[in-house]
Amino acid sequence: MAQPLKFYFDFLNQSSRALYIFLEASKIPFEAIPISMLKGEHLTGEFRDKVNRFRKLPAITDHGYQLSENVAIFRHLAREKLVPEHWYPRRQLGRSRIDEYLAWQQTNMDVACTDYFQQKWLVPYLQKTRPAENAVNVAGKQLEHTLNDFEQLFLNSRKFMMGDNISFADLSAICEIDQPKSIGYNAFQNRNKLARWYEAVRDELGPYYKDVHGEFEAKLKQSGSSNQGVAQALKQ
Amino acid sequence: MAQPLKFYFDFLNQSSRALYIFLEASKIPFEAIPISMLKGEHLTGEFRDKVNRFRKLPAITDHGYQLSENVAIFRHLAREKLVPEHWYPRRQLGRSRIDEYLAWQQTNMDVACTDYFQQKWLVPYLQKTRPAENAVNVAGKQLEHTLNDFEQLFLNSRKFMMGDNISFADLSAICEIDQPKSIGYNAFQNRNKLARWYEAVRDELGPYYKDVHGEFEAKLKQSGSSNQGVAQALKQ
Repeated sequence: MAQPLKFYFDFLNQSSRALYIFLEASKIPFEAIPISMLKGEHLTGEFRDKVNRFRKLPAITDHGYQLSENVAIFRHLAREKLVPEHWYPRRQLGRSRIDEYLAWQQTNMDVACTDYFQQKWLVPYLQKTRPAENAVNVAGKQLEHTLNDFEQLFLNSRKFMMGDNISFADLSAICEIDQPKSIGYNAFQNRNKLARWYEAVRDELGPYYKDVHGEFEAKLKQSGSSNQGVAQALKQ
Repeated sequence: MAQPLKFYFDFLNQSSRALYIFLEASKIPFEAIPISMLKGEHLTGEFRDKVNRFRKLPAITDHGYQLSENVAIFRHLAREKLVPEHWYPRRQLGRSRIDEYLAWQQTNMDVACTDYFQQKWLVPYLQKTRPAENAVNVAGKQLEHTLNDFEQLFLNSRKFMMGDNISFADLSAICEIDQPKSIGYNAFQNRNKLARWYEAVRDELGPYYKDVHGEFEAKLKQSGSSNQGVAQALKQ
């Protein structure tokens, strides 16, 4: 039987990976519909008209209801489906703290990680050139600054951002950091707290993370083989 | 008796105005604590250490619990206080649609309105110069594009964004648009739908909006009188 929930995604995109892992780990039944951003499939008429008027990924339709924006999709699922409490805990105002992080992420972490990924990988891939050194350096400086803020503002002595249990904030953040990390950026230098937290989140997510992350890295490698500039970026 | 909820704000900031109006219109008791961004009061040690580690406005403390990011504050109030349902309606997946708009706003509307305001008003004010024509033109083009998207993606033939009743999406959006509008930008040219919607939202909010908006405009005028470049921007 067709699932009422359809999930449109591309594993090259960090929010697509976070929501895919969230759906799988929460055992929410869904139909997975990969859309290739590199081929521009999210811009085509059919996707725009029938799935997502924003022409953005990830996107869902739930019983035909179209929804965009990863944080809106996450909250929709938390409200409408059976989702384990630890992802978005009510206790001790956990939801307020997660909302605060997700808003901060959208303006800071997501911008810095996306920009670095674009300058070092996506733009060279699409334009079949080498990365522009100056643009990569500027993006790298911004990323340094943002990761320092992340470690200082959101990590503490506890295992996860909200305490002993993993939440959607941790899952979103690790997928953001994987964006620059998977193309050779060292996020952990002089950041022991970040390194410890990253390892704890990765281990907690187990095979859900491993599978999706593996597919992301395979996509990067596959695309890299057709472009020397990108292949070199992956080696650095 | 001291209120458990303290609200830190500056009416020069659009999210501060939206949340202030929301608090007043919802009859949530709160202590209003104005903080002057132009004087850099949000950057000082006491505000940073005791109120908001992000050094951002608006901010709240609720029974001593510190919270930043306007969308997180809105959701916190909707969960923890008695708030009229129309602001964030559960019916017909209204919350999902409002979440979608608020996420879109953060990356689009807020960026475009803030940038225009900064280039045309804030930077000239702080640097005691005239606005840089080129920077204002670039910001104006981006704003054109964003307002077109807003009208096309979010407005329809109904009175408000979610239908017959006003929601937090409308309130947030009108305060965003007031940012460029109050310094002379014509948001309504060739945008009849936007003009009709704006008028409906303004009228529905009544005195709550009128008072806060009046204080915002008075602040602009007062600051403008000490700076010729800014005073001119206000006249255009």
